[in-house]
Amino acid sequence: MSKRQILSHKKVFASELFYVEETKFTLPNGKTKTHQNAIRRPTVSVFPITDQYEIYLITQYRYLLEKEALEAMAGFINKKETSLSAAKRELQEEMGISASHWEEIARIEMTASVFRAQSHLFLAKDLEFGKTNFDDDEHITILKMPIEEAAKKVARGEINHAPSMIGILLLDRLRRENKL
Amino acid sequence: MSKRQILSHKKVFASELFYVEETKFTLPNGKTKTHQNAIRRPTVSVFPITDQYEIYLITQYRYLLEKEALEAMAGFINKKETSLSAAKRELQEEMGISASHWEEIARIEMTASVFRAQSHLFLAKDLEFGKTNFDDDEHITILKMPIEEAAKKVARGEINHAPSMIGILLLDRLRRENKL
Repeated sequence: MSKRQILSHKKVFASELFYVEETKFTLPNGKTKTHQNAIRRPTVSVFPITDQYEIYLITQYRYLLEKEALEAMAGFINKKETSLSAAKRELQEEMGISASHWEEIARIEMTASVFRAQSHLFLAKDLEFGKTNFDDDEHITILKMPIEEAAKKVARGEINHAPSMIGILLLDRLRRENKL
Repeated sequence: MSKRQILSHKKVFASELFYVEETKFTLPNGKTKTHQNAIRRPTVSVFPITDQYEIYLITQYRYLLEKEALEAMAGFINKKETSLSAAKRELQEEMGISASHWEEIARIEMTASVFRAQSHLFLAKDLEFGKTNFDDDEHITILKMPIEEAAKKVARGEINHAPSMIGILLLDRLRRENKL
């Protein structure tokens, strides 16, 4: 399927969490093009639910979006970590919760071109509560609500962070089908 | 809420579709940090549906993901274009479809930090079919299926492009609630 011919491929920018690569290529029609893509380290998004089908979400001030955002707990996967161990670590650090049942409900690509950002979405069940351990620049508030209410907030546009929307809508669907 | 003090803020990389900005700031605890964010031009994702609650999707080889991907039709919002006019143009160019009913069903942020990529999700109804007008490097296949089937593909992980997943799950929800 790969019909383009690569002429050159190089890294043109790098930071801690992403890099930019530039690819020069020729199309079957002979035209030459240059594309820049930014590739970000993958993240995990965690959806802890109680036995009563309530979900834990957080609110946090997001400088990038210039607003307080309601979203699922999430974090980057560190080097030498699996997605599952990152999910367990983040849930422990940010919410002080450990869970005995884990399930990857989706692996998503945020965009299909230009930006590569992958997130692994995890359902966490059978929760146990301990102490939190925030990063020094995080100020988060933890909220608990029925999954159906979270899904309504997604539908009303009160939650607009893509991985959070997807996890909530998928869990709401599973719950309705009695598969949760 | 913005508790950090900005020390400097500058553009460190720019391409046609995104740029990278670097911000140096001090936290309330006195620590200094530097963050790089990549900001991409916003996109539209379009969900055309028939009177029989079928949805049009496309498959397309995605170099970034190195696979043939099933997804909603999408494109960048050009300068001087509104999100709605971009949605109308893309639907016309890629599928040769015009629609007399348009509705913005969501405005989403792909990530909450590091990458800023916004997409406007549009429902298009009352469709009329004409001729397509692809870009020269696009090879797309158009598919039509019941919304419920598309939602099953999302749940099974056969569609993993975030805006496509969100639009399909929201439309499936609206359809079940007889609001579509």
